[in-house]
Amino acid sequence: MIKTDILKNGYKILQDSERFQFGIDAVLLADYASKALKGKENVIDLGTGTGIIPLLMVNKCETAVFTGLEVQKDSADMAARSVAMNDLERRINIVNGDIKDVAKLFGKHSFNVVTCNPPYMINAHGRSNELDAKTIARHEVLCTLEDVIAAADYLLATHGSFFMIHRPFRLPEIFSSLEKHQMEMKSMRLIHPFANKEPNMVLIEARKNAKRRLTIEPPLIVRYDDGEYTEEIQNIYNK
Amino acid sequence: MIKTDILKNGYKILQDSERFQFGIDAVLLADYASKALKGKENVIDLGTGTGIIPLLMVNKCETAVFTGLEVQKDSADMAARSVAMNDLERRINIVNGDIKDVAKLFGKHSFNVVTCNPPYMINAHGRSNELDAKTIARHEVLCTLEDVIAAADYLLATHGSFFMIHRPFRLPEIFSSLEKHQMEMKSMRLIHPFANKEPNMVLIEARKNAKRRLTIEPPLIVRYDDGEYTEEIQNIYNK
Repeated sequence: MIKTDILKNGYKILQDSERFQFGIDAVLLADYASKALKGKENVIDLGTGTGIIPLLMVNKCETAVFTGLEVQKDSADMAARSVAMNDLERRINIVNGDIKDVAKLFGKHSFNVVTCNPPYMINAHGRSNELDAKTIARHEVLCTLEDVIAAADYLLATHGSFFMIHRPFRLPEIFSSLEKHQMEMKSMRLIHPFANKEPNMVLIEARKNAKRRLTIEPPLIVRYDDGEYTEEIQNIYNK
Repeated sequence: MIKTDILKNGYKILQDSERFQFGIDAVLLADYASKALKGKENVIDLGTGTGIIPLLMVNKCETAVFTGLEVQKDSADMAARSVAMNDLERRINIVNGDIKDVAKLFGKHSFNVVTCNPPYMINAHGRSNELDAKTIARHEVLCTLEDVIAAADYLLATHGSFFMIHRPFRLPEIFSSLEKHQMEMKSMRLIHPFANKEPNMVLIEARKNAKRRLTIEPPLIVRYDDGEYTEEIQNIYNK
């Protein structure tokens, strides 16, 4: 069922409760990537789904413009309808296309910020007959981590920033792929469900052709021991 | 001035107060690497200095044997005297030699655990005239990160473990060098001076020819906000 939700910034978003709905990872990525918005950024979100990332970032900087690339026609259509509902057509452009086809769709080095909340899981064994929207969003059936980083490499101008959220267990592959594409991880923030638990997500910022030096930020803790959201998470959800 | 200190396990160690004395990083690395000691491990500590790492690990497993490699003659001699003072000559062998010469000194793949608390700083600009023990221990004047990992690669048997403590800002280089040597980072633990501060050290375990999958452990917090050591740090110092 398609429903209209209101985001914290007042914008509306269409979501299909039977398809993939945005989670805390999208909210955290949009917040993390917003630090790059300082002026006339040209931002592209790879695999934008419902358009949640551009819709959450668009009010952070009046002069930035956004493109959301989405391979699934239904999702891209719904994202475009959300953009229209908010009268944001001049700020957010939704494109129906494949991450693997960016060289056909966009100019080389034509963006200075790339964001991506990619599928986390390495593959979907035995799931090839059930390529529903949720499987595509969660498993690397249509694009791999390497495809995402190769697309960011093609799209980003020199010193442009690539923001991604992923699972920590895949960091070795992330480092390896970034290095292959002359991108340097500059910042990393681990997200822990509770203060004393292993991190289950990681936010990263990489930059094209940058000097090698990583800053690991303080851990981002999602919940207090009593299960309530921490003050920082509440602030991110409300700002 | 050379003085004799007593370690938590009762062993004595000679340290020169005007040269490099062991710090919390050595204590944390020895504790972290001790998890690999399960039977007849053959362990080598690269750049052992005063021999602190083998002296802290030797009582964790009665059947493991240790080699400490140290390039500075004075330090190696002092480490050997500490070993003798504790009647540990049959368990710990101190070798005076260079990490870059491991292929001359030891058999290939002849160890199953390698530990290293290497110099953290990339170089020592303008320090070439003052190659004192502290500078050599802290700056990469005599060996680089790549030298350390190449030595571990040569020394380790298949599926052998490499334990190191380093600065988080150098993680991209650590990942890159490990990959070059077919080693996979399997575990990582970030050490934060306080819970809400950036980490200033990182413990890593890499394994030769292992499957790619990283576990990031919960953060290790050194001090409570009031400046006291946390319970975990107190436990590590006392066990």
